[in-house]
Amino acid sequence: MNRQIVLAARPIGYPKESDFKLIETPIPTPEEGQVLVKTLFLSVDPYMRGRMNQTRSYAPNVEYNEVMVGGVIAQVVESKHADFQVGDIVNAHIGWQEYGVAKGEELRKVDPTLAPISTGIGILGMPGLTAYFGLLEVGELKDGETVFVSGAAGAVGSVVGQIAKIKGCRVVGSAGTDEKIKFVLDNLGFDAAFNYKNVTDYHAKLAELCPDGIDVYFDNVGGLITDAVFPNLRIKGRVVICGQISQYNLEKPETGPRFLWHLITKRARIEGFLVFDFVEQHPQALKQMAEWLQQGKLKYRETITEGGIEKAPAAFISMLKGGNIGKQLVKVAEPN
Amino acid sequence: MNRQIVLAARPIGYPKESDFKLIETPIPTPEEGQVLVKTLFLSVDPYMRGRMNQTRSYAPNVEYNEVMVGGVIAQVVESKHADFQVGDIVNAHIGWQEYGVAKGEELRKVDPTLAPISTGIGILGMPGLTAYFGLLEVGELKDGETVFVSGAAGAVGSVVGQIAKIKGCRVVGSAGTDEKIKFVLDNLGFDAAFNYKNVTDYHAKLAELCPDGIDVYFDNVGGLITDAVFPNLRIKGRVVICGQISQYNLEKPETGPRFLWHLITKRARIEGFLVFDFVEQHPQALKQMAEWLQQGKLKYRETITEGGIEKAPAAFISMLKGGNIGKQLVKVAEPN
Repeated sequence: MNRQIVLAARPIGYPKESDFKLIETPIPTPEEGQVLVKTLFLSVDPYMRGRMNQTRSYAPNVEYNEVMVGGVIAQVVESKHADFQVGDIVNAHIGWQEYGVAKGEELRKVDPTLAPISTGIGILGMPGLTAYFGLLEVGELKDGETVFVSGAAGAVGSVVGQIAKIKGCRVVGSAGTDEKIKFVLDNLGFDAAFNYKNVTDYHAKLAELCPDGIDVYFDNVGGLITDAVFPNLRIKGRVVICGQISQYNLEKPETGPRFLWHLITKRARIEGFLVFDFVEQHPQALKQMAEWLQQGKLKYRETITEGGIEKAPAAFISMLKGGNIGKQLVKVAEPN
Repeated sequence: MNRQIVLAARPIGYPKESDFKLIETPIPTPEEGQVLVKTLFLSVDPYMRGRMNQTRSYAPNVEYNEVMVGGVIAQVVESKHADFQVGDIVNAHIGWQEYGVAKGEELRKVDPTLAPISTGIGILGMPGLTAYFGLLEVGELKDGETVFVSGAAGAVGSVVGQIAKIKGCRVVGSAGTDEKIKFVLDNLGFDAAFNYKNVTDYHAKLAELCPDGIDVYFDNVGGLITDAVFPNLRIKGRVVICGQISQYNLEKPETGPRFLWHLITKRARIEGFLVFDFVEQHPQALKQMAEWLQQGKLKYRETITEGGIEKAPAAFISMLKGGNIGKQLVKVAEPN
C-alpha cells in the first residue's frame, strides 16, 4: 500500500498534527511516458503553509483530503519513460506520500556521485536555487557589498550568506537560537550575526553590525526585523522578498510601521520573486553550486527527521517554529 | 530690499503660517561667474515639508532662520556670467525670496517662446520630469498596460496620467475633490477616477476600475490607498514611490497592514526614486515633453496664488491640504 499524508483541516495559526491525516491507497501504476517512484527523502518548506490556506496564492491551494504538496528525492521503481531506469535517483514533486507517478518531463535526475542525494532537495535543489537567484538576479549583488539575511541558518538563508561570502561581501545574519548563530559564524563564515530573541532594538543592532548600511537585504522572515532594515538601507539598496515566515502563522494579520518613504530618500527597491521564474537558468546555476560545493566553498547542514512519512507533519510544524538548522528533511525510506 | 521667507519653527503636524517668518535683507551682489536674479514665480512642492523637519533626509534640512528651499522662475537682473544676459528668464533654486544670486552653472534658461514661463517649474520643470522618469524609467511602463496614479490631479500625477495615455495605457486616478475628478476625466483623458473621500473600500474600488489588475502604480500619497493597491497588482507589477504626502503631516507615524508577501506571489517590485538621479537625461526628456505640449498631447493646469512672496506659506499649506489643481505656484513679480 501507499501511505499518504492529506489535508484534514485548514489551520488557524500554527498547524497542528490533527490538521493532517495519514491514509492508505493502492500504489499507482505508471502509464506510457510516466514513471513510478518511491520516496526516500521528503522536503518540508515554509511555502507549504500558504498552500494549506483557503486563499489562492501563486499556486492552487491544497484541497481537503488531497495529498500535501512538496518535493521529494525518490528512486525509480518502474519506468515507462525511455530516459529513466529502475534504480535511478530523481527529484520529483509528488508530495507527502511513499509512492507516486510522474511524467518523465517532471523529473530531474540526481547524480549520487556528486553529493549525498538528499542535497537534491536542499542546497542543490529548490532552496539552494532560491538563494542563488534571489541574491544574484533579484538582488543584483555586487562584489564587496554588505548583505543582511534573516533566517540565516535555514535552508535558504545559510546558502545566501555563503554565496555572498564567495562574492567578497560583508555578511550579517539573524536567527532564533544561539546554536544557529554559532553555526553561521563558525561554520559558514558569516562576519556577524545575532539571535533576534535576545535583541530588543533591531534597528540599533543592524546599525552596529552594518555601520555603512545594508546594500542587499535577503528577507526570509518579514515582521519586526524587516521593519528595522529600511532605515539602515544604503542608497540604491535592494530588499529581496523571499519569504515572510513570521507572518504565515498569525491568527490575525499584523500591522507595522509605514516605511515606503524610506524608498524615496534611499532610491531603494523591494522585489519579490519565485525560483520557478528562473527555470531556464536552473541547470547552469546547479552546475555552479555543485562546483562550489566540491571546492568546499559551500557547506550545508540538514536536520533529518527519521521515522517515515508519518513524521512529516511533526517535522513541518517544527520547521515552521524554527526547530531546524539548515534544510529540514524527513527520511521516508532507504534506497534499494 | 530683498524680502525672504525663513523657517521660524519646525512644524508638528501640518505647518502653520507662524512656522514661517518674513524678513528683509539687502539685495545680494553677484560675484564673478554669478548672476543676480529676481523671482517671478515660486514653486511650492510637497518635498519641502520634509526639509522643515529636524531629521536629515536625502538633502540637508532647512535650519532656523534659513531661507526656505525651492525652485523659482526668475529674471536676470545683473550678470557676471558670459552665458546670461539681463532680462533672460531662468529656472533657479534660490528658495523663497525675491532676489538671489546663483552660479551660472546652477541656472537653466527657460525659452519664453515655447510655453508660458511658469511651466518651467511645472510641466516643463521638476514635476513634469518627475512624472516622466518615474513612469517610464522606474516604472518601466509598457504600451497598453494598466496604470493607477494617486494624487492624480496634482502637478506630478496629472502628467503621469497623460504620459500613460500617450503610451496607449488604461489610466485610473484618485484625487480628493469632485472637481479634480472631473478635471482628470474631462480634460486629461483618464479612463476612470475616484474621489477617495467618497469611497470607503479602496480595494473593491480598484478591483472594479482595474478588473485585470494594476501593472504600474505611481504613488504620490501613500497610506490607505497604497495599501489597497498590493492585492490588486498584476504579476510583475511595479509600484513607483514618488511621494507619500498622506504621511508628511502626521503628528504620530501611522501603522498599516503588512503587505510584503504580496510581492512574492505577484513577483512585484516597489521602487523609490528622485528626479535628480536622472539629471543627465533631463534635456532630452524636456525636449520630448515640450513636443507633446505643442502637439496638444499634454495639457496642464496651474493654481497660481497672487500677492507676492508673503503669500508663499499660505499657498504651501493649501497645497499640502490638497487645495490645488495642477501645479501650485506663487506669483511674486512681473517680468520687466
